[in-house]
Amino acid sequence: MKGHAKDIKPKVTVNDRFWKRKIEVVQKEVIPYQWKALNDQLSDAKPSHAIRNFKIAAGEEEGEFYGKVFQDSDVAKWLEAVAYSLETLPNPDLETIADEVIDLIGRAQQNDGYLNTYYTIKEPNKRWTNLRDNHELYVSGHLIEAAVAYYEATGKKKFLNIMCKNADYITSVFGPHKHQIQGYPGHQEIELALIKLYRITNKDAYLQLSKFFIEQRGKEPHYFKLEAKKRNDDRPFRGELKYKYNQSHTPVFNQTEAVGHAVRGVYMYTAIAELASITGDNTFIETAKKLWNNVTKKQMYLTGGIGASPFGEAFSTDYDLPNDTCYNETCASIGLVFWANRMLQMEKKAEYADVLERVIYNGTISGMDLKGNKFFYVNPLEVTPEVIENRHDHKHVKPERQTWFKTACCPPNLARMVTSIGKHIYSVEDQQLFIHLYMGNEGEFIINGTPVSIVQKTTYPWEATVEIEVSPAQPNDFTLALRIPGWCQHATITIQGEVFNIADNLKDGYVYIRRNWKENDLIQLHFQMEVQRIRSNPKVRENVGKVALQRGPIVYCIEECDNGSDLHGIALPSDAKLSATYDENLLNGVVYISGEGKRISETSEKEELYSTIPMTTNKVELKAIPYYAWCNRKPGEMRVWINNQLQ
Amino acid sequence: MKGHAKDIKPKVTVNDRFWKRKIEVVQKEVIPYQWKALNDQLSDAKPSHAIRNFKIAAGEEEGEFYGKVFQDSDVAKWLEAVAYSLETLPNPDLETIADEVIDLIGRAQQNDGYLNTYYTIKEPNKRWTNLRDNHELYVSGHLIEAAVAYYEATGKKKFLNIMCKNADYITSVFGPHKHQIQGYPGHQEIELALIKLYRITNKDAYLQLSKFFIEQRGKEPHYFKLEAKKRNDDRPFRGELKYKYNQSHTPVFNQTEAVGHAVRGVYMYTAIAELASITGDNTFIETAKKLWNNVTKKQMYLTGGIGASPFGEAFSTDYDLPNDTCYNETCASIGLVFWANRMLQMEKKAEYADVLERVIYNGTISGMDLKGNKFFYVNPLEVTPEVIENRHDHKHVKPERQTWFKTACCPPNLARMVTSIGKHIYSVEDQQLFIHLYMGNEGEFIINGTPVSIVQKTTYPWEATVEIEVSPAQPNDFTLALRIPGWCQHATITIQGEVFNIADNLKDGYVYIRRNWKENDLIQLHFQMEVQRIRSNPKVRENVGKVALQRGPIVYCIEECDNGSDLHGIALPSDAKLSATYDENLLNGVVYISGEGKRISETSEKEELYSTIPMTTNKVELKAIPYYAWCNRKPGEMRVWINNQLQ
Repeated sequence: MKGHAKDIKPKVTVNDRFWKRKIEVVQKEVIPYQWKALNDQLSDAKPSHAIRNFKIAAGEEEGEFYGKVFQDSDVAKWLEAVAYSLETLPNPDLETIADEVIDLIGRAQQNDGYLNTYYTIKEPNKRWTNLRDNHELYVSGHLIEAAVAYYEATGKKKFLNIMCKNADYITSVFGPHKHQIQGYPGHQEIELALIKLYRITNKDAYLQLSKFFIEQRGKEPHYFKLEAKKRNDDRPFRGELKYKYNQSHTPVFNQTEAVGHAVRGVYMYTAIAELASITGDNTFIETAKKLWNNVTKKQMYLTGGIGASPFGEAFSTDYDLPNDTCYNETCASIGLVFWANRMLQMEKKAEYADVLERVIYNGTISGMDLKGNKFFYVNPLEVTPEVIENRHDHKHVKPERQTWFKTACCPPNLARMVTSIGKHIYSVEDQQLFIHLYMGNEGEFIINGTPVSIVQKTTYPWEATVEIEVSPAQPNDFTLALRIPGWCQHATITIQGEVFNIADNLKDGYVYIRRNWKENDLIQLHFQMEVQRIRSNPKVRENVGKVALQRGPIVYCIEECDNGSDLHGIALPSDAKLSATYDENLLNGVVYISGEGKRISETSEKEELYSTIPMTTNKVELKAIPYYAWCNRKPGEMRVWINNQLQ
Repeated sequence: MKGHAKDIKPKVTVNDRFWKRKIEVVQKEVIPYQWKALNDQLSDAKPSHAIRNFKIAAGEEEGEFYGKVFQDSDVAKWLEAVAYSLETLPNPDLETIADEVIDLIGRAQQNDGYLNTYYTIKEPNKRWTNLRDNHELYVSGHLIEAAVAYYEATGKKKFLNIMCKNADYITSVFGPHKHQIQGYPGHQEIELALIKLYRITNKDAYLQLSKFFIEQRGKEPHYFKLEAKKRNDDRPFRGELKYKYNQSHTPVFNQTEAVGHAVRGVYMYTAIAELASITGDNTFIETAKKLWNNVTKKQMYLTGGIGASPFGEAFSTDYDLPNDTCYNETCASIGLVFWANRMLQMEKKAEYADVLERVIYNGTISGMDLKGNKFFYVNPLEVTPEVIENRHDHKHVKPERQTWFKTACCPPNLARMVTSIGKHIYSVEDQQLFIHLYMGNEGEFIINGTPVSIVQKTTYPWEATVEIEVSPAQPNDFTLALRIPGWCQHATITIQGEVFNIADNLKDGYVYIRRNWKENDLIQLHFQMEVQRIRSNPKVRENVGKVALQRGPIVYCIEECDNGSDLHGIALPSDAKLSATYDENLLNGVVYISGEGKRISETSEKEELYSTIPMTTNKVELKAIPYYAWCNRKPGEMRVWINNQLQ
């Protein structure tokens, strides 16, 4: 059991201007707003009924189940976000509410440990008859994750006990033995949750069940086909995707390309990667790496968005990355954060952290407005409201963020990601402390048995100067490994004012600094952060002849409210001078990029539809803002990939 | 009644290498093939059942109706194509078959004149209860068109009498009077057919009913809504299109933009234009012009394709012309041919003939392979088979032509267009003979009471040298008006060897030559025909930074079998030298275009997905072939719009 218990979770308090603001928005807006949503107290959104479902299941209210079959998971994700929030910001009122919800969950649990309001209320005799579509294991997974987080945050065991009872029951029902069900979830999630529960409880059965779900998936005879037959359900499943939809089209270890529903996929890949690092099993390791390479080198948008196809909210094929019709569900990118985290657990390569950083600064937080009460489910890289309005095949794209959705998975998922962002900064392994991300925070660790505190000060992501104060309780020999961001062309490091030789100590994107650290040792990092013109691999059809702007980890876009309409008529030639400016008053304080581009001159109404006469263009001052912050002023056109040339 | 009977239909025999070959393909392949299809004798296509439906309706066979509710129209379109074919190429065997089909149609007709196998067999008591969806008037329209064509070709009156009886019945059922139905067809078609019947019979009631259908359409209270209510049908109609789908969303004279199902729209616009020229009514004239301008200046592909949206096979909005997901139904482009013809009837402006020429040489005949037994329903301007295979929203596009479709409207529609192509070359009005199109043919006309024969000799569209021999039976004073094609930058005309001054005699794109014509007067035309780089109006988002090639009326495309895969990685910079070469052995003899372009150099599998390093490109010899002939060698990628620059 390589790796187990080596990665002790550090205690980290994020106080960084960029993230603290987001965390505060979640604490002050999103969590209370979502609590109202769960209790049907929002006038501008459809009812959630999620809390009422638990009350009805507990026999405390009369009524019918309402909502999606996975409605319970909204409560779970909310509780998980609350847990992360309480971990760094105590809030007795909120904790009381959470405790009451946990009590309610306990009362809704059946005697044998079963917990699911849909089946308890609606079809009590049909448990486990439709794993493919009905999310029972998915809901348990989210509740387990929440219970682990709540225990870690508060030390209270009630929720953990409820979910251990549930997990024990599930462990008895599913497995390789004859009296057990040889099935697996239609929506993967519990696989990664069971690992978290295993890490807390050290109960091997949880780990084994997670492994079983992965190893069993897609084997013949195909469980979902047998199950559908038993239900007399012979309807075709998910059109041309078929069982690719839930990644059960072939045994998991045969899978080398990401296919199907992106969230299902990425949650499963997360579990595979963590099982790989826990078990050291080469089959898991190789599968995780192959899938990682496929997703991040062939199927990922510049923003870290994944899932190019709206049909099935799914991965498409290699290099098929349309900017305007993509799905890029917020939850899928959040899943990619988890997966990158587990890949880093598996091996310390900066490429994993590079993706993690790309995703957290772009395609995830784009899902929420700056105020924290509107959300994108779909995160396109190009929006033309007129096209969305008129083209049926663009209907899934929204030109503006929406209030709480009917399928409300993304907002609470974002809330738990933002509140737990500090958990991705560090990892401790053996006598090494890895710093994967740079953001203002204070961390407490135990290294070689000695408490070590780390303080990061930075105005990242707008400037890449970082001060790191290392303070062991007593002088301590250990290695600090600092990630050099993939976007950085030139980095310098000084320790106590002395330049540190990066080149000689670099491995897989990390600079390894071993020394005898003393109180208040100061490391100063400087990463050269320039505006970069990014091009795609030429196999990406949609982006040939186009350029995107990035600075540090931030991907930029141009918006109609800065640049006028018809953004397709703007070009940014390769010799365009680009400059970066911090503006305190823009979008809560961002660096924007300005430069001289070209624009097709205004055309008259009489302009022919087709012509042999070259177009006229004029120079124009362009302004690009961070992608994550688009549509926070005025709705309108937006695009990340800008034409290089117009003719 | 301005204009009526002025446009005497000339008798024209096309003997042009380009078109004769297509006509022969239709005569030798398509018509026999489609006859087999109508009789369910094709092993590789779904049964049509169309002839059997008539036999069952006639009480001569047992069985059930099978097929679409408009299945009868396949027989009608086949008969119409047969008629045009017989007009110039007598074929007694074929004529016998056609006569038998006509006899069968007569036997399937009800005593009161009603004629529709679906209702006769399936719901005899439900006639006219669902005009919106069920195509009764549409089917009658196509049968009327066929009957008129058959009468004109053979002089036989039987079919015409059957359809007059049918039209008389319909004229009694529909109209403004209280005892009549104030409805109109869900699929427009009979409007233009009734005008044809009026022109042959001179019976005003047919013209009035055509007008009534147009004038009544979209008025409140809305007929289709009332009708649906009567049927207790409260299902939503056609999603977000609603009644735009069949152009009944608002009264016809309020319509200034083409919306909804493209074939329905263009058939209606055709009728409006013809009613405009017959009645001289300004409301009709203005409506026809506004819609024409909207379609041809804002919603038409370079190929003459119309109907950008697969949802509802419909028009989209202005300048919304995606190349890969467009619908561009073959039938819609065929309808545009009819409409352009009627606009030319209304006023002699070359812009109408320019569109007509664009459509007949590109977006219509692309619907059929060179052998005449495979067909495209959808005519995209960009195809990547891998994308079609993987993206759900591209499923309507086929990478290869298919055999007879289940909705088999396009193949017989193409057959009738090709066999009647000669009808678009000339028109005679007052003492003027207009030549709209250049193709090898012999025509016979009566001008000022004198027979005049015209012989055109040309290798158009590959070269634009045309010899026209004008031979009146005796010397005759009249005007010959020759169209100068819109694509032509420089034209010369000589008459009997003497240069004719074009500039002084040009009006709306026609050169008016009035003289006393004598036997064997020879006109020689030369239109400068160069390879042209076409760009789109910059409002067309998809085509900014792209160029298309055109030479004369022919639009070109690049294909994978000539240029390798990844056509998106090819660019044709503005200084690329382009040359045109006739190749007798290529695609039945075409002019291809070659030139030096650029191509992104082969990338390695390890190439990053995103990079700051400029791409490398290399020079490459490109070969472009006529768009209409694509996918006649090997299926693969194809694109009309080529990148100007790569970076």
